[in-house]
Amino acid sequence: MATADRVEKPSDKFRSPQSRNGVVQPLLTDMYQINMAYAYWKSGKMADVAVFDLFFRKSPFGGEFTIFAGLDECIAFLQNFRYTKSDLEYLACVMDPGVEKPFFEYLSQLTTTDVTVMAIHEGSVVFPRVPLITLEGPLIVIQLLETTLLNLVNYASLLATNAARYRLAAGPHKQLLEFGLRRAQGPDGGLSASKYAYIGGFDGTSNVLAGKLYGIPVKGTHAHAFVSSYSSIDDLHNRELRHASTGALHDLVSISETYRTQVCELLKILQSEASEGEFAAFCAFAIAFPSGLVALVDTYDVFKSGIVNFCGVALALHQLGYKPIGIRLDSGDLAYLSNTVRTLFGQVAIKFDLPWFEHLTIVASNNINEDTINSLNEQNHKIDSFGIGTHLVTCQRQPALGCVFKLVEVNGQAKIKLSQDVEKVTCPGKKTVYRLYGSDGRSLIDLLQLSSEAPLSVGQKVLCRHPFQESKRAYVTPAKVEKLLKVYWKDGAVQQEMPTLLEIRDRVIAALASLRQDHKRNLNPTPYKVGVSDCLYNFMHELWLQSAPIGELF
Amino acid sequence: MATADRVEKPSDKFRSPQSRNGVVQPLLTDMYQINMAYAYWKSGKMADVAVFDLFFRKSPFGGEFTIFAGLDECIAFLQNFRYTKSDLEYLACVMDPGVEKPFFEYLSQLTTTDVTVMAIHEGSVVFPRVPLITLEGPLIVIQLLETTLLNLVNYASLLATNAARYRLAAGPHKQLLEFGLRRAQGPDGGLSASKYAYIGGFDGTSNVLAGKLYGIPVKGTHAHAFVSSYSSIDDLHNRELRHASTGALHDLVSISETYRTQVCELLKILQSEASEGEFAAFCAFAIAFPSGLVALVDTYDVFKSGIVNFCGVALALHQLGYKPIGIRLDSGDLAYLSNTVRTLFGQVAIKFDLPWFEHLTIVASNNINEDTINSLNEQNHKIDSFGIGTHLVTCQRQPALGCVFKLVEVNGQAKIKLSQDVEKVTCPGKKTVYRLYGSDGRSLIDLLQLSSEAPLSVGQKVLCRHPFQESKRAYVTPAKVEKLLKVYWKDGAVQQEMPTLLEIRDRVIAALASLRQDHKRNLNPTPYKVGVSDCLYNFMHELWLQSAPIGELF
Repeated sequence: MATADRVEKPSDKFRSPQSRNGVVQPLLTDMYQINMAYAYWKSGKMADVAVFDLFFRKSPFGGEFTIFAGLDECIAFLQNFRYTKSDLEYLACVMDPGVEKPFFEYLSQLTTTDVTVMAIHEGSVVFPRVPLITLEGPLIVIQLLETTLLNLVNYASLLATNAARYRLAAGPHKQLLEFGLRRAQGPDGGLSASKYAYIGGFDGTSNVLAGKLYGIPVKGTHAHAFVSSYSSIDDLHNRELRHASTGALHDLVSISETYRTQVCELLKILQSEASEGEFAAFCAFAIAFPSGLVALVDTYDVFKSGIVNFCGVALALHQLGYKPIGIRLDSGDLAYLSNTVRTLFGQVAIKFDLPWFEHLTIVASNNINEDTINSLNEQNHKIDSFGIGTHLVTCQRQPALGCVFKLVEVNGQAKIKLSQDVEKVTCPGKKTVYRLYGSDGRSLIDLLQLSSEAPLSVGQKVLCRHPFQESKRAYVTPAKVEKLLKVYWKDGAVQQEMPTLLEIRDRVIAALASLRQDHKRNLNPTPYKVGVSDCLYNFMHELWLQSAPIGELF
Repeated sequence: MATADRVEKPSDKFRSPQSRNGVVQPLLTDMYQINMAYAYWKSGKMADVAVFDLFFRKSPFGGEFTIFAGLDECIAFLQNFRYTKSDLEYLACVMDPGVEKPFFEYLSQLTTTDVTVMAIHEGSVVFPRVPLITLEGPLIVIQLLETTLLNLVNYASLLATNAARYRLAAGPHKQLLEFGLRRAQGPDGGLSASKYAYIGGFDGTSNVLAGKLYGIPVKGTHAHAFVSSYSSIDDLHNRELRHASTGALHDLVSISETYRTQVCELLKILQSEASEGEFAAFCAFAIAFPSGLVALVDTYDVFKSGIVNFCGVALALHQLGYKPIGIRLDSGDLAYLSNTVRTLFGQVAIKFDLPWFEHLTIVASNNINEDTINSLNEQNHKIDSFGIGTHLVTCQRQPALGCVFKLVEVNGQAKIKLSQDVEKVTCPGKKTVYRLYGSDGRSLIDLLQLSSEAPLSVGQKVLCRHPFQESKRAYVTPAKVEKLLKVYWKDGAVQQEMPTLLEIRDRVIAALASLRQDHKRNLNPTPYKVGVSDCLYNFMHELWLQSAPIGELF
């Protein structure tokens, strides 16, 4: 396409110095966090040390896996966390007038230096109830980070998971392009979508600013309006194109016309029915991008007009030493159309003895979602590249991931959050998270244990328990043990080399490849097991009983 | 609440100088727009003048009305439209290397000075197929604006419509608060949500940055973590509160304890079952915000713990000259809980002879959507204030509005976009849009006519036709005629006084009030009629026949 294939990584000078052009500032939070901070401060809890877990309870889209994303932005947020003078003036203006002035002094000094962040690597496959991020440090500071971290992780992980599901559906060899900017939830909804779709396995985006800020390949050709803006060949003030090798000027229009006549005869199509405006538009585009022609062929009629106009211009480009790329379909029955177009391309390939013509790229971009791709697969579609917009970027099937942020310990004392809904009861205390692997290299289970327990080791027989169902338990003897939570932020400094987008994207591909197929399948996937150690099980249930007084029947 | 009720409009100094902290820049567009611009430029179409309409085809959420929003941001975008040197360097780096250098020169000079924008007022009630914005000017420039304008209008209108539907469901007197930041689609998804929820009829947001940038009232009290971070009254390093009138220091904790004992007796609840940590947390919050106590009462058990702890502290606050605000419920059966809590408040009111106690505010905030509110209404809930998050901000029921941007005229020649799907055929040519009103002041129909037709006037009998169904037509004699499209941008300058958020919000309220009830109802609403003039009908169908050649049956 007439695009940026060549330049995978524009120079770093275009990158955003801080994620999101500085939108992520400490005031991007809920008011109650600030009010709680004041109440904590008033009751003298400035020195309280807390541990919070950030996790979700159910994988999205009816699936059984989630891609964890957004960590890079979380760490950038922590690095830059500081209330400005203007922020504090604003808070003083909207908070209760009784709020004491020294509180704003106190806020002005707050940083995240005393916060330690443990996190799973961005781009990992993750599962319900496993802490993705654990924060330990001053209660007040961590409380003030909650909303922003949830915001940064929720949509990023949701979108990356959605993109990964499209990638699984389409298979590894199809091109997937994110085309959703116009329908995204706000300007930055569009930017985030482009970024996390790329991480999840897309190949590029239509969003130019995302390309500029994040170095993602940008793609795109033309719209229906481009085609209909040309009424006839007279609208074309420039008909000439230089031969790719000789440099000699040729009249692309008349060469294309000659070929088009031959194609019409071959395909038994009335040339008079082909739109002259569309033909002019394709010529114009070919003159501008002789090596990048992807023609949108459905403005009038795919077969009577679009395909013959495209073939005429494509053959002319070939004669002048260029190779056309293909066509785009933006409406209709994509399985039928792609198959028929492929057949017609085959006829042209034989007629003109150009075998590559049969394999020209077919791009499809009409309101496609994961189910569409699965259905197209069943119908043996011949599409090479999908442009996916609304359903991808808004995550139409489930537009929010429900990550939560739960207090699990204060001043060394474990905390449990009870709920009528057992699944919502939290796992108390500061924990270590292990991923245990079988001898085939596949992961078997994620296991949470109290951080005070002895570390797990390879070959050790471990009792893994279901966190809520007493009778569900199993022994595992792992062939490999991976500690999932790594220290990412400590003593005011980043503790890991932060990966590039491309590295995170590669991690997603590797992580999905190592996940058992039955966890990934579209229909009724098998839940991946997440267990707790026997010690954590007992600790949790004891605390539960302590916290829930015996009621009276009435 | 301990919030910003008092300050509806913080000083303008906090406002964002440009919407969205400068994210809305010309590169926030699809790559194909830039590629088309180059192809237009190469084929000499720099002087072509085009007219484009921005409209949608179906109102969202199964409804029959839409609130138009986002115009202010569109106009700000036009005002600031200019490619920077860095933008052009980036484009030169990612576009085909064959793209000629003078094209970037040309782009560097582009402004929107020659574009005229006609638009419907932001905050208006609008309907399918009616152009919300019409742009006339250089084809290339308008094409370059398309994606950004769609992005700015789509989510803004969707969200404002969603918010307006919640407002209709809740009725005019309930407080509606937007609590969605943590689940929004990215940081700016959250900011846009807060802004357009306010326009659509919400009273405030939890999003502090939205408050700072847009002057929206911010609200919020405390979370479950606040409650569970206190284990007992010993965690409270400060127990004292000054009497509101005398200024004398009192021990809030012991006064609250005394009252709590009385409340337990009154309500026949075992005091030993009430959580001491929760009691400490409520005391801490009351000491920090003695005039702003809204207690989250469901961390342990609403009746056995939350309500008695709250009543104890609330009565103590009263004794010290303050008025508590109320409670928040964040789980469970909200109809049942709110009714029971109201009854208990009534018992306390009688016992302590404090009639206002019965009317304390009950806030509810558990995963609420439009259907929940309708169902709560049927169950005679006693909730005064709703905090609404995920469903509102992600528009879960339909997360994208399908606004499109269609070419309707080039160089004075009308253009029609055909489609297999009749409803997708566009209405060609530059048009005038009228809203015709009956003698009762209600609008009857929106009528599109060609801009070359004579203006409509009051009392004139007009034939209104369905755009696609020949037999559907009706005469209307309007008692009032309103031209919906106003010139907003011309000769490089804003042509209207741009309204404040509050003015737009007021327009939404007025517009919905004047819309007939059957168009607004939740179940099977009546479609509002949008017709075309007889002249436009004939013009459109003639062009349609011309553009669609007679096929051959096969």
